[in-house]
Amino acid sequence: MRRVMLLVAYDGTNYCGWQVQPNGRTIEGELNLALSELFGREIAVTGASRTDAGVHSYGNVAVFDVDTRMPAEKISYALNQRLPEDIVVQLSKEVAANFHPRHQKSKKTYEYRVLNREFRDPNRRIDTYFYYRNLNIEAMQRAAEYLVGEHDFKSFCSIKAQVETTVRKIYTLTIERQGDIIVIRIAGNGFLYNMVRIIAGTLLQVGSGERKPEEMSGILEALDREMAGPTAPACGLTMIGIEFE
Amino acid sequence: MRRVMLLVAYDGTNYCGWQVQPNGRTIEGELNLALSELFGREIAVTGASRTDAGVHSYGNVAVFDVDTRMPAEKISYALNQRLPEDIVVQLSKEVAANFHPRHQKSKKTYEYRVLNREFRDPNRRIDTYFYYRNLNIEAMQRAAEYLVGEHDFKSFCSIKAQVETTVRKIYTLTIERQGDIIVIRIAGNGFLYNMVRIIAGTLLQVGSGERKPEEMSGILEALDREMAGPTAPACGLTMIGIEFE
Repeated sequence: MRRVMLLVAYDGTNYCGWQVQPNGRTIEGELNLALSELFGREIAVTGASRTDAGVHSYGNVAVFDVDTRMPAEKISYALNQRLPEDIVVQLSKEVAANFHPRHQKSKKTYEYRVLNREFRDPNRRIDTYFYYRNLNIEAMQRAAEYLVGEHDFKSFCSIKAQVETTVRKIYTLTIERQGDIIVIRIAGNGFLYNMVRIIAGTLLQVGSGERKPEEMSGILEALDREMAGPTAPACGLTMIGIEFE
Repeated sequence: MRRVMLLVAYDGTNYCGWQVQPNGRTIEGELNLALSELFGREIAVTGASRTDAGVHSYGNVAVFDVDTRMPAEKISYALNQRLPEDIVVQLSKEVAANFHPRHQKSKKTYEYRVLNREFRDPNRRIDTYFYYRNLNIEAMQRAAEYLVGEHDFKSFCSIKAQVETTVRKIYTLTIERQGDIIVIRIAGNGFLYNMVRIIAGTLLQVGSGERKPEEMSGILEALDREMAGPTAPACGLTMIGIEFE
């Protein structure tokens, strides 16, 4: 048995998220199906980031065990021939037999992309959230500074989440305008349920002038989901990549 | 009666091109339908660029005549509520009653976008053509120089075209790498049927080393479609915009 790691890119628009569900197509489900077909026996992957319905990925990570002579590097090509066009494996390689993508310490990076212009652009609708109001990038950047570091992010976590601790560490959080797209890029040691989307929703409130950057410290201290802004739509969120220690 | 101009963006993936057809959905058809619904009588637009099936647009131009009290600037908003999500009017404004988008002299700009990396990227599949072989940008740029200026582009025109003259003028033709996307940007006083896609297909042959840049002058002189490269796929082509004199 060898453990193989996959780097998986997907357009999440037409999926009910990563995790296998009784009803509806999922990224994990499609990978399991293609792998089981390829190797002629049931195979199930373990994913690093169980992204939500509609969320995209550039570099999510999954592992599985298999007994095969096929070189690990070739599996990506064979798999892509069996996957739908909105899921594309970017890399496959052998890893240590005890490598687990969720138990390993890691740095995860996400991007929330806002298409900030007067009208929608049909050619950029896959992985952006359209927002037509003017945004003050500098105010968003000042607000973002409050979130960098180790904090209890309970205010930025869906109340549906069941976790032992809501303390997480954000390494970097930058806001940059690239033409008419505003990229909110966030790297941390882990993210709570909906955390990046709630941060994006709150930063959009600051950018549009509904809230002041200084309010961020009060929101953090409150440890209350009601205090933060709305959960920004899934379509703007992309899992960029994961670095393992 | 007032003449109104529309700036129209669309993802052409799911359309049989611009022009109304007996079978299949078209951009022109969808615009006519939405306008006729909006104004309660049959309206038909005249387009500047009758793009092919699968070709995208950022700024194609259409005009129509209407007798309405609605301010011309508001028509875009009303129209977008009736259009599918892959067609978005970016601007509407009144123009002179004798303005005709195809008879007026103009400068048209197109982009052909090549996603040049080892694996497909599902989030950028709408308006790029995936090409995994290494491309020599500098060779492509040297080849492009042969095409700039006024030439008979018969070699770069589909044999299906029926036109009086195959002489056209290219103002600029640039090739630029933006990350892993190679952008071929071309501006001219008009383009023959499939001309941009045949130029892109030929430049890709040069970039991949199949052909030398110097061959371009011989291809031009031959006045023979067989001498140029293949017609690059429609998905990579976007009509960027039109400037009228």
